[in-house]
This record gives sequence, C-alpha cells and structure tokens, in this order.
Amino acid sequence: MFHSKIVVTLRKSILDPQGKAVQHGMHSLGYEAVKNVRMGKFVELQIDAVSMESAESITREVSEKLLANPVMEDVSFTVEEEGR
Amino acid sequence: MFHSKIVVTLRKSILDPQGKAVQHGMHSLGYEAVKNVRMGKFVELQIDAVSMESAESITREVSEKLLANPVMEDVSFTVEEEGR
Repeated sequence: MFHSKIVVTLRKSILDPQGKAVQHGMHSLGYEAVKNVRMGKFVELQIDAVSMESAESITREVSEKLLANPVMEDVSFTVEEEGR
Repeated sequence: MFHSKIVVTLRKSILDPQGKAVQHGMHSLGYEAVKNVRMGKFVELQIDAVSMESAESITREVSEKLLANPVMEDVSFTVEEEGR
C-alpha cells in the first residue's frame, strides 16, 4: 500500500481572494506581521499499487484529471510506501 | 521575511464525506486502486518577523486560532527563512 500527499496551490499570477480574507482576519486578531496568505488544498491518498512507479503515475493522473485545474493551479506530491 | 507552510487535516476518527466523494469520482474514472482519500487544507504565509522563533510562534497561534478547529483537525507546519 502506498500513501500519497498532494498539495494543490493557486498559481502565483492568480489572485487569491480567500487568502486575502484570511489575511484580513489575522490582522484583525493583531497579527499584522502576516504579509501574505495563499490558500491551497491538501489531499492524502491510499493506493493499492504493485510498485512505486505505478503509485506515482496514478497520483499524477488523478491530480491532473480530478484534483487540480491545470490552467489556474500547480500540483506537487510525494509518494511513500506504507509500513517502511 | 519568513515563509510558513501549514497543513490542516481532519483527525483520523472524523468521517470525511468530501474525501469519500472524491474517491468515488476516482473510481468512476477507473482508478479503483485508490482505497482512501482524505481532504485537507494547505495554507502559505509570508511573515515579517524578527526571528525564526517569532515566525514559528505566530504561525502556531494563527493556525490554532483561525485556520484549524482543534476539536476536529490536526495542524502541522514548517517555517523557512526566505532567500536562504
């Protein structure tokens, strides 16, 4: 069994209104030191694959097809074999 | 300037209906190998702090007060100094 951790972030050129709202909330609580906030998604998968290569290719494909919008978002991921 | 990366995940004992829906979508696309999906949040902060210790404590405080619900969610984070 393999365990994938996927991070989906908005591209730097794309405005992030949700991040701006969170930043505003932090300033209201007194955390003026926070100068920028970007929100993203974090997804964990458990994959029953025969090899690390297969687990990586499944992770890449589902990330691109289902989890991220390639026009607006970047994806990065790590895959680990469980029980190691 | 410091750069924090925060991951907020649902505790293992809490059901994740959004993850189940995504898993169902993956199975519909033919990725039956995906056995479990858990959704979380990823947040990046830029912090103007005088020291790593200060940046870490700001990150911890805003995570606990604003980003995560400590009853249902776990938080982990890393802080790096920018330009290193």
